[in-house]
Amino acid sequence: MKIDGIHYRTIWVADDGWSVEVIDQTRLPHEFAVARLETVEDAARAIKDMLVRGAPLIGATAAYGLCLALRQDASDEALDRAYDMLLATRPTAVNLKYSLDAMRGAIRAASGNARIEAAYACAARLCDEDVEICRRIGENGLRIIRGLSEAKEGKTVNILTHCNAGWLACVDWGTALAPIYMAHDEGIAVHVWVDETRPRNQGASLSAFELGAHGVPHTILPDNAGGHLMQHGQVDMCIVGTDRTTATGDVANKIGTYLKALAADANGVPFYVALPHTTIDWDLSDGVREIEIEQRSPREVTHMTGRTEEGEIVTVEISAPGSPAANYGFDVTPARYVTGLITERGVAPASREGLLTLYPERRHGGSK
Amino acid sequence: MKIDGIHYRTIWVADDGWSVEVIDQTRLPHEFAVARLETVEDAARAIKDMLVRGAPLIGATAAYGLCLALRQDASDEALDRAYDMLLATRPTAVNLKYSLDAMRGAIRAASGNARIEAAYACAARLCDEDVEICRRIGENGLRIIRGLSEAKEGKTVNILTHCNAGWLACVDWGTALAPIYMAHDEGIAVHVWVDETRPRNQGASLSAFELGAHGVPHTILPDNAGGHLMQHGQVDMCIVGTDRTTATGDVANKIGTYLKALAADANGVPFYVALPHTTIDWDLSDGVREIEIEQRSPREVTHMTGRTEEGEIVTVEISAPGSPAANYGFDVTPARYVTGLITERGVAPASREGLLTLYPERRHGGSK
Repeated sequence: MKIDGIHYRTIWVADDGWSVEVIDQTRLPHEFAVARLETVEDAARAIKDMLVRGAPLIGATAAYGLCLALRQDASDEALDRAYDMLLATRPTAVNLKYSLDAMRGAIRAASGNARIEAAYACAARLCDEDVEICRRIGENGLRIIRGLSEAKEGKTVNILTHCNAGWLACVDWGTALAPIYMAHDEGIAVHVWVDETRPRNQGASLSAFELGAHGVPHTILPDNAGGHLMQHGQVDMCIVGTDRTTATGDVANKIGTYLKALAADANGVPFYVALPHTTIDWDLSDGVREIEIEQRSPREVTHMTGRTEEGEIVTVEISAPGSPAANYGFDVTPARYVTGLITERGVAPASREGLLTLYPERRHGGSK
Repeated sequence: MKIDGIHYRTIWVADDGWSVEVIDQTRLPHEFAVARLETVEDAARAIKDMLVRGAPLIGATAAYGLCLALRQDASDEALDRAYDMLLATRPTAVNLKYSLDAMRGAIRAASGNARIEAAYACAARLCDEDVEICRRIGENGLRIIRGLSEAKEGKTVNILTHCNAGWLACVDWGTALAPIYMAHDEGIAVHVWVDETRPRNQGASLSAFELGAHGVPHTILPDNAGGHLMQHGQVDMCIVGTDRTTATGDVANKIGTYLKALAADANGVPFYVALPHTTIDWDLSDGVREIEIEQRSPREVTHMTGRTEEGEIVTVEISAPGSPAANYGFDVTPARYVTGLITERGVAPASREGLLTLYPERRHGGSK
C-alpha cells in the first residue's frame, strides 16, 4: 500500500541483492524508518523486539532470516540452529513454523551454494503468495461489507477492528483491513472503529496510521469502549485477524479480541476473522486448552513511549511505581462466538466442517 | 486509609477553618500533592479536571463547593447558580445531585450567616456518612470473600477490579476495595487483578497506588486481559464500583466494566457491584437507554502523562498524529450480568425486588 504516494511492502531485499530491509514498526506512527537486517540474529531480534509483527510478516521475516543464516554457514547443522532460533522468537503465531518448514524443505532440496539461491527464491515466493492471499481475503470480505452497505441503503458501514491486521502486519494489503481498503476504494462509505490495543497500542499507532495514510475514515477507541458502542447499534460488524486458528475454528488473536467477540455475540453484531490458510493449525482442536499464550515483559504495560510537543520520542512510566504487571499477548476466542472465517478461498462458518469445506484436501486427516 | 503511616481522608477542611483541601489525584501515582480549594469555581474545576473523582468524592467535593459559594454570596440566587454550576461538572454520577440536594435543603432551612455554618455542618455530616457507609459495604462484601476463601481452603482469592472504587474515590475505605482491605486485614489471602482502565488509567495509577500503600498483593493488567484470565480460572470474583445504578439494578460504571461483566457471565465468575445507596437513581429503570454517557476530550486517549527515568512528568502523544479519537466515560452493565449489589445494608440481587428488599421505604413509589 502507499505512504506519501510511494508504494511499499513491509519487507524486501535491499539494492545490494542480499540484505533485507523492513519498515521499523516500533518507530511508527511517529517516524517512518527502514531497518536493515544482515544476519539471522538481526532477523530474530527484529521479530522478538517487534520491529516486525503480525503473523504473516513474522513468517516472511523468518524466511529471509534463514537466507541470511545460510550466507554465514550453509550446513544442515547451521540451518537447524537458525530454524530453532527463529522458531523460538514468538511462540503463538503458527505462520512462523509454516514459513520455516517451507524454507527448510526448499533449502534441503538444494546443495552447496545453490542452497542460498534456493532460499532467497523460496522467501520471495512466500512473500508473493502472501500478497496474493491477502488480496483474495480482501475480495471475499468485500462481499460482506457490500451486503451490509446495501442493507443500510448506502449509509456508512461502521466496522470495529482490534490490533493491526492491516498491510503492516503482512507483506501488503493486510488480512482484516484488506476488505475495508477494497470497500473504500470501491466508493462504499465505511468508517473504522480502531481499538487502541493496549499494551503496545498497535491499533492506535499502526492501524490508525495506515488507514489515515490511505484516507479511510476511522476513529481510535480505548479498548474498553467497544461494548458500549455495540450496545448502542454503532457497530455493524467486527473484523479481526488471527495469529493461530484451530481446525475447529477457535481463534487466537491479540489479547482483548475475546472480549469484543463476547460483546458482539451479546448484541447481535457479526464477528468475522480474516486469515490466510497458513494461520490454521490443523493439529489443534481446543484453542483455549491447547494454544500457548505468550507472556511478554511487564514493562510494556507499565511504560509507554510517545512523542512530546517538541517532537522528542520519550518513554514514561504510567503506573504506580513498584506495582507488578502482567502482560499476556493473546487470548482465544472460541469458535461459537465467530460468525465466519474469511480466507483466501472464501467465507466459512468457524467449525471443522466449515474449514473442511474450504480446504477439502484436509478432510482425510493429513496433518500437513 | 494510610499513606506512609499517616491517616488521610481524600477531602477535609483546612486549618484555617474554611478552605477545603483535597488530594490532587491527577498527580498520583507519581507525586502526592494536596490542592487547596477557596472558591466554588475551584471546587467545580477540581471535579471537572478530575483532581477528585469517584462518585462519592465528587458528591463530597460539590458539598464543600456550596460552602465556599455561600462565603462569597449567601443569597438564594447565588446558591442556585452554584448548585447548577456544580451539577454540570460531571453528568453521569448521581451522588452529585444527591449531595447538592441535601446541601440545598440544609442551607435553605437556615438564614443569613447561619447558612454558612449550616452548610459546613451538612458537608461534614455527608462526609462522615460516606465513611460509615463504605465501612458497612466493606463488612458486607467481606462475607463474600470469606466464603470464597473457605471454599478454596484458604488458597488465595483472586479478585478483579476495574477503575478505582477504592478510598481515593470516596472519603475513606472505598466501595469495591473496602471488602478487600478488610479481608486482607483479617488475614485472608487475597490478590487483586487491577485493570489499568484506559484512557485515564485510574486502575494502574490510583488502585495500584492505594493497594500498594496498604500492602495488598495486586497485579496491574491491560484492560484487554481479564477475559483470558477468567477463561483460565484465574479470577474468583469481580468487584467494581458504580457511578449510577437504576432501580432495576442496571449499573453505569467506568467504560469497560460491561466487557468484564460479559466475560464473567460467560465463564461463571461472580460479578459484584459495590455501592452506597446514594448511587441508586430510583427514577430510572432502563440503564442502557436512560443513563447519559459523558463524552470526554479525545486528548485523554491520544496523549498520556507519565514520569521519565529522570523523574520529570511529561505528556506524550501515543497515537497516530491526526487520527480522531472517541472517549466515552462510562458504560452500562445490564442487571442480568450482575451477581449481586453490595450496599451498606447488605447484598441483594440486581433487580427492583432485590433493591426494594434492602430499601423497603422505596417500595411505595417515593422517588426521593
